[in-house]
Amino acid sequence: MTISNLTVRDNMLVVTWTDESCTQFPPIWLRDNCPSGLHPDTQERLLDLLSVEEEPILTAANQDGDVAVLAYEDGHVSQMPISLMNAHRPGQRAFDAAKQPEIFWRADLGAEGIPRHAATPILADDEALQSWMQETAKYGLAIVHDVEDHVGAGVELAERIGFLRKTNFGTTFEVINKPDPNNLAYTSIALPLHTDLPNQEVPPGYQFLHCLANEATGGGSIFADGFAMAGDLRNEDPEAFRLLCETPIPFRFHDKDADIRVHHPVIDLAADGSLREIRYNAHIAAIFDMPADIMPAFYKAYRAYMAKTRDPKYRLTLKLKAGEMVVFDNRRVLHGREAFDPSTGFRHLHGCYVDRGEFFSRLRLLSPSQD
Amino acid sequence: MTISNLTVRDNMLVVTWTDESCTQFPPIWLRDNCPSGLHPDTQERLLDLLSVEEEPILTAANQDGDVAVLAYEDGHVSQMPISLMNAHRPGQRAFDAAKQPEIFWRADLGAEGIPRHAATPILADDEALQSWMQETAKYGLAIVHDVEDHVGAGVELAERIGFLRKTNFGTTFEVINKPDPNNLAYTSIALPLHTDLPNQEVPPGYQFLHCLANEATGGGSIFADGFAMAGDLRNEDPEAFRLLCETPIPFRFHDKDADIRVHHPVIDLAADGSLREIRYNAHIAAIFDMPADIMPAFYKAYRAYMAKTRDPKYRLTLKLKAGEMVVFDNRRVLHGREAFDPSTGFRHLHGCYVDRGEFFSRLRLLSPSQD
Repeated sequence: MTISNLTVRDNMLVVTWTDESCTQFPPIWLRDNCPSGLHPDTQERLLDLLSVEEEPILTAANQDGDVAVLAYEDGHVSQMPISLMNAHRPGQRAFDAAKQPEIFWRADLGAEGIPRHAATPILADDEALQSWMQETAKYGLAIVHDVEDHVGAGVELAERIGFLRKTNFGTTFEVINKPDPNNLAYTSIALPLHTDLPNQEVPPGYQFLHCLANEATGGGSIFADGFAMAGDLRNEDPEAFRLLCETPIPFRFHDKDADIRVHHPVIDLAADGSLREIRYNAHIAAIFDMPADIMPAFYKAYRAYMAKTRDPKYRLTLKLKAGEMVVFDNRRVLHGREAFDPSTGFRHLHGCYVDRGEFFSRLRLLSPSQD
Repeated sequence: MTISNLTVRDNMLVVTWTDESCTQFPPIWLRDNCPSGLHPDTQERLLDLLSVEEEPILTAANQDGDVAVLAYEDGHVSQMPISLMNAHRPGQRAFDAAKQPEIFWRADLGAEGIPRHAATPILADDEALQSWMQETAKYGLAIVHDVEDHVGAGVELAERIGFLRKTNFGTTFEVINKPDPNNLAYTSIALPLHTDLPNQEVPPGYQFLHCLANEATGGGSIFADGFAMAGDLRNEDPEAFRLLCETPIPFRFHDKDADIRVHHPVIDLAADGSLREIRYNAHIAAIFDMPADIMPAFYKAYRAYMAKTRDPKYRLTLKLKAGEMVVFDNRRVLHGREAFDPSTGFRHLHGCYVDRGEFFSRLRLLSPSQD
């Protein structure tokens, strides 16, 4: 995009672009981002902002090829790249390769609709890594197949993205169920849909569950898109949605080694109103403590979301095979497990997390179009 | 606290306590937290909330010793511990040993006013550990003295609290400056006050800087209480304070291995309006992108906070000695460094972080009064 006109009006630089859109740039912003005060490679800010007047006066603005030449009353002259001004128009967020358009899904996606990627190319090739990560970001869910048959193989794939998130449960975790009557009651029960560790200030981002064995009868994995359920609730019952966005509830995990608590709403929105996070885990939701006058309405809203997690419309079931690894955004996609019969066979999953920060960072580094 | 009266009014349980305060408990909350549906030890929720009616009807309430006996229209009867009802009154947050009363400080605290604790008792004794942590939480700043003279000694103290926070810079980091002319330009410059890694979704919590050598001329450490500066700005210029609380700005760190970005306000408040976090780092604040119409006012607010970081009223300078470790809440207390002359001696700090989640968890476990 290039400039068709630039002018100074009421001490604002007014730029009209060739598509006839128009942008106002305050002089203090122009001085703060003058290339003479930015590191040429990293754009790290070197200028001391307090060395500039609070309201610099722009006296002249002229285009000279790729730059706008800006003259100030105090004698400073900036060579302002037009590309920088175009990429950073006030009120508009700069391009970010980490922001993938989300595709909400429901049960009708079908297990066959889940993005599938082979392990070997991901390990060897940055394009395959990027493609897998982009689809995982869009759906919040993907399967990697042909993962090698050892405990470190899933971790190796996760570490292609970034380092692992450590929690009070360690850096990796095992879900093992041997045919052993002593453990039967504990290991065979169904796990309702939930997100992991909503009691953390920031719950783990992407979760990796590598299946090494799944020979027992039952034991299917269940997933539901928490954003799709929240989006539908937003349409069906805006007041319930609002309460789930605005009412912090207590979450707590407590054992002899940890007592980790947070207050947070079930649904978290980004500044632009888009969905950012779901925290839903009925077992570690602690005793609600909102004021009594909103409590009955909050419970109705909470139950409405809970009912969606039971609704077959949203629940996608698949049985992981040995050599498959499921990857999902733990802050968006709820996961659970069907009951199974541990006397019928061995079941072994190996899990770990990589946080959104590391995931997004890798997506940016893999995108050559990034500045 | 015990009950002087309990009654059912408009399908609310109305409790009058012996101090004449009065609390309303909605029946859905009472059913959700009925002890028959909570794990007796962990208070983990076992009840399926959807198995209860949306609006249970309370038909009778009577005190029986330590419990309120609550009868419902559907036949359910709860034995509700009065202590639980007292500890979890709707609209009131439960006691939390991690919440230490903050003591805001300014330069007049003096280096001698910083809490000081000896290393050996912290390693050996939970009471000394708790005392150190409580003071560190209150002031956001403390010094540990008589730390052993090896690189792992500071880490060992940090790990008394919890596991280390890993970042794109690793799990620990070195600040080493040898008398070497090749490095002089890089290593001797002053570092203005800042918080570390505000470009992370959650910046590191508590920072530990163990001083192994500090023989150069200059090189004093500077600290300022970001909450005290924000609190003063709140009084002096409420509109500037509001803009710093409500306007997300972009932060970014970018090198060949990472491109980590976030939008976040400079000041973050808790739900009750108290200060929760300061993010301030002029070098990795990226190009501001708020709408042009609020930009000039935002810059004024941002400069007002920046000016406070330069104001001697807030800046506490001390020169760490070998064997001392400074500990500070990186999400509250800003840190910096005076220029120094690397030709005059060796300077070596070893650093790491432990996040607030692990810190607060340890404080709770150390408090026998916790439920």
